Amino acid sequence: MALRHKMIVNANTFGRLMKQQVRLFSYAIPGEPSAPYLQTPVPGPKSKELMKEMEKIQQSGTVQIFVDYEKSLGNYIVDCDGNALLDVYAQIASMPLGYNHPHLHKVLKKDSSIATLVNRPALGVFPGKDWPEKLNNVLLKNAPPKLNMVTTMMCGSCSNENAYKMIFMAYMRKQRGGREQFTKEEEESCMINQPPGAPKLSLLSFMGAFHGRTMGCLATTHSKAVHKIDVPSLDWPIADFPQYKYPLSENVRENKAEDERCLSKVEDLINTWNKKGMPVAGIVVEPIQSEGGDNEASPEFFHKLQAISKKYGCGLLIDEVQTGCGATGKMWCHEHFNLPHPPDVVTFSKKMQLGGYYHTEEFMINTPLRIFNTWLGDPGKIVLLEGIMDVIRKEKLLDLVESVGQVLEVGLNDLSKKYSNIINSPRGRGTFRAFNGSTTEVRNQITNKLKQKGIIAGGSGDIAVRMRPSLVFQKQHAEIFLSSLNDVLKEING
Amino acid sequence: MALRHKMIVNANTFGRLMKQQVRLFSYAIPGEPSAPYLQTPVPGPKSKELMKEMEKIQQSGTVQIFVDYEKSLGNYIVDCDGNALLDVYAQIASMPLGYNHPHLHKVLKKDSSIATLVNRPALGVFPGKDWPEKLNNVLLKNAPPKLNMVTTMMCGSCSNENAYKMIFMAYMRKQRGGREQFTKEEEESCMINQPPGAPKLSLLSFMGAFHGRTMGCLATTHSKAVHKIDVPSLDWPIADFPQYKYPLSENVRENKAEDERCLSKVEDLINTWNKKGMPVAGIVVEPIQSEGGDNEASPEFFHKLQAISKKYGCGLLIDEVQTGCGATGKMWCHEHFNLPHPPDVVTFSKKMQLGGYYHTEEFMINTPLRIFNTWLGDPGKIVLLEGIMDVIRKEKLLDLVESVGQVLEVGLNDLSKKYSNIINSPRGRGTFRAFNGSTTEVRNQITNKLKQKGIIAGGSGDIAVRMRPSLVFQKQHAEIFLSSLNDVLKEING
Repeated sequence: MALRHKMIVNANTFGRLMKQQVRLFSYAIPGEPSAPYLQTPVPGPKSKELMKEMEKIQQSGTVQIFVDYEKSLGNYIVDCDGNALLDVYAQIASMPLGYNHPHLHKVLKKDSSIATLVNRPALGVFPGKDWPEKLNNVLLKNAPPKLNMVTTMMCGSCSNENAYKMIFMAYMRKQRGGREQFTKEEEESCMINQPPGAPKLSLLSFMGAFHGRTMGCLATTHSKAVHKIDVPSLDWPIADFPQYKYPLSENVRENKAEDERCLSKVEDLINTWNKKGMPVAGIVVEPIQSEGGDNEASPEFFHKLQAISKKYGCGLLIDEVQTGCGATGKMWCHEHFNLPHPPDVVTFSKKMQLGGYYHTEEFMINTPLRIFNTWLGDPGKIVLLEGIMDVIRKEKLLDLVESVGQVLEVGLNDLSKKYSNIINSPRGRGTFRAFNGSTTEVRNQITNKLKQKGIIAGGSGDIAVRMRPSLVFQKQHAEIFLSSLNDVLKEING
Repeated sequence: MALRHKMIVNANTFGRLMKQQVRLFSYAIPGEPSAPYLQTPVPGPKSKELMKEMEKIQQSGTVQIFVDYEKSLGNYIVDCDGNALLDVYAQIASMPLGYNHPHLHKVLKKDSSIATLVNRPALGVFPGKDWPEKLNNVLLKNAPPKLNMVTTMMCGSCSNENAYKMIFMAYMRKQRGGREQFTKEEEESCMINQPPGAPKLSLLSFMGAFHGRTMGCLATTHSKAVHKIDVPSLDWPIADFPQYKYPLSENVRENKAEDERCLSKVEDLINTWNKKGMPVAGIVVEPIQSEGGDNEASPEFFHKLQAISKKYGCGLLIDEVQTGCGATGKMWCHEHFNLPHPPDVVTFSKKMQLGGYYHTEEFMINTPLRIFNTWLGDPGKIVLLEGIMDVIRKEKLLDLVESVGQVLEVGLNDLSKKYSNIINSPRGRGTFRAFNGSTTEVRNQITNKLKQKGIIAGGSGDIAVRMRPSLVFQKQHAEIFLSSLNDVLKEING
């Protein structure tokens, strides 16, 4: 546990390691620092200088540091002031293999990769001759079980937006008894945003959810007021998401009752909205509410939610933008639930490099141009993703996530007992983990103090600290994190 | 004018040219075919085979051909059946320099470029140390006059979505007398999509407009029913966009009256929506309706529209996603209008490689996290855009666009007179041009027959053919296009 301190003493450690390219640990990334190394407070003077530059151009209040991406390596982000920080946040959960993974450099340097990047196609009209093969061997090969259709997009928001549209279209097709030809009235009314062509439909979402910030997504996002305020929205139903008591093993009955309360609310809302003429065409839910507080629900909750979606004919969309691509120890978080049927739609982005959604054949829209845009994704990102999937498989990173997750679980449980007045409710799957601070102030103190010890973690919701390391996060990194967190909690405890 | 036929006779022409890397014309791209060259009908057997593959995975009815992007060059797209087609559509107007421009290969091969692509940051939190410089030297250096703020996004839709949000936020701030702190009621009500936090505001758009397909954008898109049907929408005002009679010089009075009719409708709608409690916070308009029929309006129309936006305190957003980045002979199409004030917001994407919006300081939102998402664009695309802007400047491509545009203007005017029973209303700026077929069927015949002569053009709206070549489209390409179009029209004429 004193490892970090030992390493941080020698100001030249990082520099020497970079030169020597040694393997310090059996799973270590050659050249990766063995501990955080700070030369200045974070942010340092050079970052502060650049912030002033950037503030002239755009709102930049969220910027933490300016980064030297050529020097960053593995789990360590190196900023422009020469500080090497252990990155447990990984670009808001979007870096699968840490920084400068050598295999990705190798993949991108190929002439064929460069040609893919230079010649970006409109994929819906002029795809490259290798595109069907890439869809099969990169995206479908890693699809959630039993979902064998995929449409690519650019980011999480546009993936959800288009998945919502597909759900609305599939719902209306069912209402029309399968008809996909439209009447003149339908065609004319939709052009002026009116029913029957633009029908009064709704989508049910959960309080605490985050599904993106474009206007359709934003109507289903309910994590922070700052995301939503001043933006007109849609009158759609919002159910409560379970708020569990921890530790789970000591609160089985209460949490089961909480599941039932929330599920009964879901049914009530569906009935209410159906009655008021804005039928609920779909339900959108995260397997873990990853922005609004790392709120988890039991497999049983998701089983019953799926049963409700089947009962009322609402499409069930599981938003795996933040949870997907391995961080929970499975490729897709909802695989932990062992649902009896596949979800109707699963959206992805972040670690997957580009956005998109998997879906069942039942939800396939057969008329061209209904779901469409200029780029429909980016083959340049698939080149990267192919390399990423190769590394995940060859280096057995899902196993690594699972075993390092256990180290974190034990360590966070211990710390939560030791400092139960400051932190509580450790939870998560794989290395996708969180715990609560006793108040928002304490939570902010924790993330700020961690940063001054060379560790970047994130906040989630009002009081949680979230861990979103990349998939190459190893035992030694977990130990550095736990040791530093221990120090921070000790300091706060006074 | 017989050039194409001469060249197409020799089946080995393209192959030899690729080997010889000769300069056939003073401005020619070394190795570019001198004419279209077809070995099979378009699509050929290999494309058809791949279509079957792709149909198993997703709706693929819009795919025209599968492309060999390593063999494509300059203005010529080479498909997987070995056909070389002159590309006058350029990936739905999104390719600025044609295929495989050597400078872009050179730029992307650099180690620093590869590092940028491998380490994609969350730009709002951990930007690279060169990011402020890139924003200045790539984006602001090429900004519309007097717009000195820029926010980056990924694509055209999310640029418009976020620009709409900024307009709503700026509008509400003005309503609150500048207050950016929120009341508890505002914060709580927005979380359930209700006013006052989620206010009842609207955005005025035009019939025939295309601003994207995510739900906010889609509420302002009115070009084709197939884009909108079955998707719930917002009750926002939609004004008529001028429908001019051509040639403009012979219809001055009628077109002026058309301007007045549409502008008066805009004011009526603003008054109506303001009265019904959904005040119009902004107006969104394309400088040329680029998807809904290549509908143009006069500089006077835009001057008066801006005056109306000022009078009613609505933000004016000019959507330059398709018109921006040089194709009209100026970097931004609205520069042709010489507006007395800069537009409040200008959105971009397509040829710019990534999305985003420029805006005035007045529209700056000062609170962090209100406009935000994980990636906020992609520095990998800025690497490309920097190379593109260097080429545009060094090779004086805006001058080229201007001069080749004149060749097209003269040629299309001549053909419209010669075949006035089949085509009419040639129009456009630079190489961004269009003309109407007499009916939808005739228009489709024209684009289909052009394709069988080795030329890819696009449709726009119900009856227009649109030209969207890249900025390296030259006199000889224009002549091949005009000559082939002449042949097609002769055939249709019977």
